[in-house]
This record gives sequence, C-alpha cells and structure tokens, in this order.
Amino acid sequence: MTDKRPSLSDIENAGAMMQGHLVHTPMVRTAVMSDETGAEVFLKLENLQVTGSFKARGAMIKIASLTEAERSAGVIAMSAGNHAQGVAYHAGRLGIPATIVMPKNTPFSKVARTESHGATVELIGADVAEAADAAANIAEQTGATFIHPFDDPAVIAGQGCVGLEMLRDDPALDVIVVPIGGGGLISGIAIAAKALRPEIEIVGVQSEAFPFMQQAMGKAVSAAVPTEVGVAEGIAVKRPGALTREIVRDLVSDIMLVSEMQIERAIQRLAEQEKIVAEGAGAVGVAALMSAPSRWAGKRVGVVICGGNIDSRLLSTILLRGLSRDGRMARLRITLPDKPGALASISTLIGEAGANIVEIVHQRLFYDLPVRYAEVDVALETRNRGHVDKLIDLLTKKGFPARFAGNDSTH
Amino acid sequence: MTDKRPSLSDIENAGAMMQGHLVHTPMVRTAVMSDETGAEVFLKLENLQVTGSFKARGAMIKIASLTEAERSAGVIAMSAGNHAQGVAYHAGRLGIPATIVMPKNTPFSKVARTESHGATVELIGADVAEAADAAANIAEQTGATFIHPFDDPAVIAGQGCVGLEMLRDDPALDVIVVPIGGGGLISGIAIAAKALRPEIEIVGVQSEAFPFMQQAMGKAVSAAVPTEVGVAEGIAVKRPGALTREIVRDLVSDIMLVSEMQIERAIQRLAEQEKIVAEGAGAVGVAALMSAPSRWAGKRVGVVICGGNIDSRLLSTILLRGLSRDGRMARLRITLPDKPGALASISTLIGEAGANIVEIVHQRLFYDLPVRYAEVDVALETRNRGHVDKLIDLLTKKGFPARFAGNDSTH
Repeated sequence: MTDKRPSLSDIENAGAMMQGHLVHTPMVRTAVMSDETGAEVFLKLENLQVTGSFKARGAMIKIASLTEAERSAGVIAMSAGNHAQGVAYHAGRLGIPATIVMPKNTPFSKVARTESHGATVELIGADVAEAADAAANIAEQTGATFIHPFDDPAVIAGQGCVGLEMLRDDPALDVIVVPIGGGGLISGIAIAAKALRPEIEIVGVQSEAFPFMQQAMGKAVSAAVPTEVGVAEGIAVKRPGALTREIVRDLVSDIMLVSEMQIERAIQRLAEQEKIVAEGAGAVGVAALMSAPSRWAGKRVGVVICGGNIDSRLLSTILLRGLSRDGRMARLRITLPDKPGALASISTLIGEAGANIVEIVHQRLFYDLPVRYAEVDVALETRNRGHVDKLIDLLTKKGFPARFAGNDSTH
Repeated sequence: MTDKRPSLSDIENAGAMMQGHLVHTPMVRTAVMSDETGAEVFLKLENLQVTGSFKARGAMIKIASLTEAERSAGVIAMSAGNHAQGVAYHAGRLGIPATIVMPKNTPFSKVARTESHGATVELIGADVAEAADAAANIAEQTGATFIHPFDDPAVIAGQGCVGLEMLRDDPALDVIVVPIGGGGLISGIAIAAKALRPEIEIVGVQSEAFPFMQQAMGKAVSAAVPTEVGVAEGIAVKRPGALTREIVRDLVSDIMLVSEMQIERAIQRLAEQEKIVAEGAGAVGVAALMSAPSRWAGKRVGVVICGGNIDSRLLSTILLRGLSRDGRMARLRITLPDKPGALASISTLIGEAGANIVEIVHQRLFYDLPVRYAEVDVALETRNRGHVDKLIDLLTKKGFPARFAGNDSTH
C-alpha cells in the first residue's frame, strides 16, 4: 500500500500544473491570535481558492491524470459539498462530462452552484452512503471515472500543494494545523512539509462529532459526541481513507478534537476579527488553536483555513448568536402596564442605562398575563453580559419586570 | 500647496517602515468576477490589514514622524471608525497617550475596540462636526498632536503603500479602482502607481449619497442622493481634503458613483462568492466594477477592498436580505383553516413543490381573520423568485391563500 503514496516530487509537479489555473492562496499573519497565543500565527487562506476550498486542487490533478479515452467517458463524483464544486469546475473548464451524485436532501444552493459549472447533478439516496452506492453503479454502467474525494494518490498530491505553498511563503514554520475529514488534505500537506522540513509538526483537527481518524490511530479517545446537525459538515466523514490513514499514522503527531461550540466561535472570530468567511470545516484549525493557546507559545504556526462555503443563513445565525452570547445584543421581554406612557418610560430607562434600542420586536397581548398588562420584546445593543444583567435589575426594580427573551438564533 | 505632496520615495520610505509591523496584504485573482467582466480582476485585501483597514498605514507613518516631545504630549483624533482604530493601535503599541473623540451616538462595539488598544475615548457632540470641534479644542488645550484622517502628507504617504504593494505584486495592472471618502487612500495610491507606471488608470468610487470629491472636481453630477443610513459610513465624508482634492484632480481619471443597493449587493457577493468580509466602504470598488462590467474588458484591474469593519448585525441583515432578494429564501404568510391536518396539508404541498421548510415562524391567531382561520408564517428555502411565485400560486389554488410576508431584514 505504501508505494501508492505520492512523493514530494509528485506534489511539486502538481503545483507546477496549477500555475495559471488555481490560486497560490495567501498566508496572512494574524496580530490578534499571535498576541493571544504568544505564537506567530499565520492563516493559510484556502477559502480564497477557486470554488471556495482546497478541493479544487485534488480534483484538478486527478482529472489531469486521465487519458483521452477516460476523459471522453466522463467523470463522476459523490459529494454534496466542496468536492462536487472542485470536480465540476475542472470538468467544465476542460469540457469533460461530469456527473455529481448528491443525496436527495441536498440544499438547492449547492445543487445550483454545481450545475453552474456545467455538471449534471443526480439527486439519489437518502444519505451519503446511498448516494455513494448510486455513484458507484453509475460509474460501472457508464464507464465514467469515479473521483474519490480523498483516498487517491493524485488527489492527495493536489492537496499537498497547500503545504508546498505554505513552506515556500514561510520556510520557518514550526507547526501546521490542518482539518481532517477523510484525510486527503493533511496527508498531502504532511508529505510535502515533512520532506521539506523534517522537524515540522503536523497537527490534525477533527470535530468531536466525527473523531474517526483519531480513533483509527488507535489512541484512547472518547466516543463520538452525537450532534444533530454538525456545523462542520465538510469534515463529517465516518470512514477515513485506507491510504490517508497510513500516511497520517506515519507523519501526523497529534489529532485534536474540537466541539460544535468551539467551531461556531471560531467561525464568528474569523468573520469579525479576521474579516474572513470560513465554513465550519475551515474553522476547526482556529478552534483548536484557541482551545489550547499556550500549546503554541513561541512557535511559528500555520493554520489552514481550508474552505469558505458556508450557507449565508447559517453564517448569519452564528454571527447573531455570537452577539447574543457575548452580551453585545440582547432580547428582553418586559412586562408593562398597557397604558399610555409605559413604553416611553422603559425607553427612557434603557437609554439612561446606556443601551441602544435596536428594535421593538413584538407586542404580545392575550397571553397568560393579567388583563391591562402587556409584554414587549425589545432588542438591544448592549456592552456585555454584566450590562444586560444590570439592565434587567433596573427595569424590574422600577416596576417593569424584565427577563431574557432568548437569543437571536431563530433563523 | 503642491509641494506638500508626498513623493514616490516618501511612500517607499513609508513602506520600508511598515515591514514587520503591518501586513503586506495579499492581492488575489477572482475567477468569477474575471469571467463576468472579461477582465483579469484582482482584489487587494486591505481588510486583512491590522485593525481591519488601510487606516493603520497612514496612522503609523504620521505617528512615526512625530518628535519625542510631540509623542510625550500625546495624539488625538476624531473618528468613530477605522481611523480611530489605526491611531489607537499604533499609539498603544508605542506607549503614546491617545485620545479619540467620537460622537455620542457611536456604537459600543467601536468604542470598546478602540479602548482595547489603550486609547481614551471621549464621547462628545451630537455628530461628527461637533466631535471634530471638540477634538480641536482638546488638542489646543493639551498640546496633543491632532492626526487628520486624510489631509496630511504623512498620512497620504502611508496609504500610498497600498499602491506600491499592488504594483510590486502585479506590475502589469492597467487600472486600480479605489474607494474615496476624504481622498487620502486614492491620493497615496495614485502618486505611487502613476510614478511607477504612468499609463495606469486610477478610478475612484464614491457612494451616491456622498459624491463630494466628484463634485469638487467640477464635473457635472447630480446632487447627492439623500439616504437615511448609508451602508458605506467609512466614506461618508462631506468635505474632501484640500491637498487630496488637488492630487485627485491631477491623477485620477474618473470617479464613479454607486447606489446603496449596489453596495449592499457587493458586500453580499464578497461574502458569498469571495469569502471575504468587507464593510460598505470596502465594497464600493466591487460595486463599481459590477455596475459596468464591459468597461473593464481586456484589462488587468486591481480593486482595493479597503476595510472589513462591518457590524455583525448589519452583515447578517445584508446576507439575509440577499437570500430573500434572490428568491433563495422566502417568508410566506399562509391562511389556513384552524383545524387538525391543515398544517400537514400545506407542508406536503410545499415539499412536493420542491421547497424546503426552514422554520414555521409564528402562528398568529386573533387577528383580522374570520374565526376558525389561522395564519402561519413559513420560512422556506427556495430556488429563485420564479419558484416562489409558483409556490404562492399553487398554495392559493389549493385553498390556502398565500402571500409574501416580507423579507428577512428585520434584524
């Protein structure tokens, strides 16, 4: 099996092929994260790659490896996410017929984005496993080449170019932090980086909900934390690759796990502080970094932000929940006598307490309140949690019982 | 006046001083915008600069130009935005006392961010003009040096480094597109770029609401379009600088105006497509680019994304409004008989029509409806506007009168 691994020179060849077609993505120092960790922290912005993720690299190199006959027969892939975009983009660019199989419940936006590159999308199966079976069947029937999302030497060589670029831009990196789903990205990066700089440390990151590469390493870990909807769907992979597993075992020193909440905060932080849109899978490196700030002190750390394809609705929800969580925005439900002047009184109190009324959300009558009382939901811009608590106290003392009315996550 | 202009070598010196302190920000090709315009489009990501905008450059160079005595006396600036961050950041780094005057209604987040760098924030005045007067008074009383946001040769030299870096990274640029508020950024870029490449075209962009540099050029323009709250507050400048005005007159060939809606769409596009968080002022270059796609055909165009400091609530609103505008999300208000099974029926109809129910928002009883009817607001993921219209038709025909229930802008 080991002889299937791509070498540094395979990765260098892949890098040469990408020139003029894909982006040598920037790696930017982050002042705030460097200060907080005592490290020099750099973000490798692979979310700025064509199609919004590193997947365009592996897909390109795999497609480039096909013979003329194979190209005519077309390619097929199973993915509801970034791999679909990557394959569809390059196939479309080269005029190669591409079929992408996605599970039936895939959001329209992903279907539309894939179709926009000229690929045919087939919605088959209730889940990823059924879709994968269907893709295999279609490949067999049509003779199209199935492009595996990670467990393929050409794909791994393509992803490895991320590591090549990082060490070209900063040859002194001590650590590279890489998200792990199936293991293609970290395998390629580890091969390139360890060949160029043997003392470098490669740290993988998985979500607690999908810690299966860590488990495959045979280390003692707790069971997967079940989550209803993981925010890092791009690394929600149940079975790491056979080839990638071997490479990771040999070259990766540590696999860290991060929670849903840590990932959510990392997405928020990247958007607010670093001005970067990252998807959940793209943000796990930052989540790991901030989960153990002192671990990195004194080192030069490159964190791979591997993708930015996040649904706008999800991003909005995360930003609003963040404001609420930090106490920078709050919804209060305030009980007030249903008579003229009451609203003016609470508005004045709130203003004097130094909060800004953003909106009066809703007036609920007819609820379980004594007649002649009303409830008003007020959305406020506030300083922090302590400020919110003080405001609640103040209103309540002045005869307007107030309480939290939940956060802004209802989108 | 002309002799006060910084020269190319002033700007080169400024660039040398920045090394190790500020970020040489990346310039990244955008495949989608290049395709849409027939140009080669590059985004200069100055939103990734320390403090989230180019303002950190001018502030640094100005502060570096002060004598020891001036430094001890401290610095003062008037700004509710990026200039405040820039001045506070460098003063804090160098241990120089800094006072930032902001109008009283400034959002807490901006105050807090400025204070986090160690600056003293004074909230004075009902608006920017009053705050500016107050800052001038304080400067006079305390002997602190007032740092002008744009009309200062040292500040202009600092901002000019943006142009220097762009031409260093791509010496073949044909056009640079730059947002204009007071004119400091475009003045510096124009001096550097025209000196290095005389045939380059410098295009300025202003918002229709604040077209005052364009007006100062004496070109025939319509009056400012009044807007209640401009989304591009960073370039909401009523009086361009005296020095910057001269430089712009000499070196800038064209000033384009963009509307609030075009700016909003540009912010949306940058986040969704380019994975970049830009504030309104930072997005006007993209708004101008897309407002006249054929203008750029065949050229190498660098668009300066000058800042990313956008309030999370505003960004969320823009993203959600975008989804609604594009018909990718819709809220329908549906009237249905208030009896068992009605909700199941509409759910089935909606599912069969190919829309996803994201959430059942609210059940309004007791309104102006006949008793025994209820209204339900349903948030849906949809394909596009046509899809939404078809769905409304279908529901109405099947006995569940449906209509748009507004968009998701209520945050």
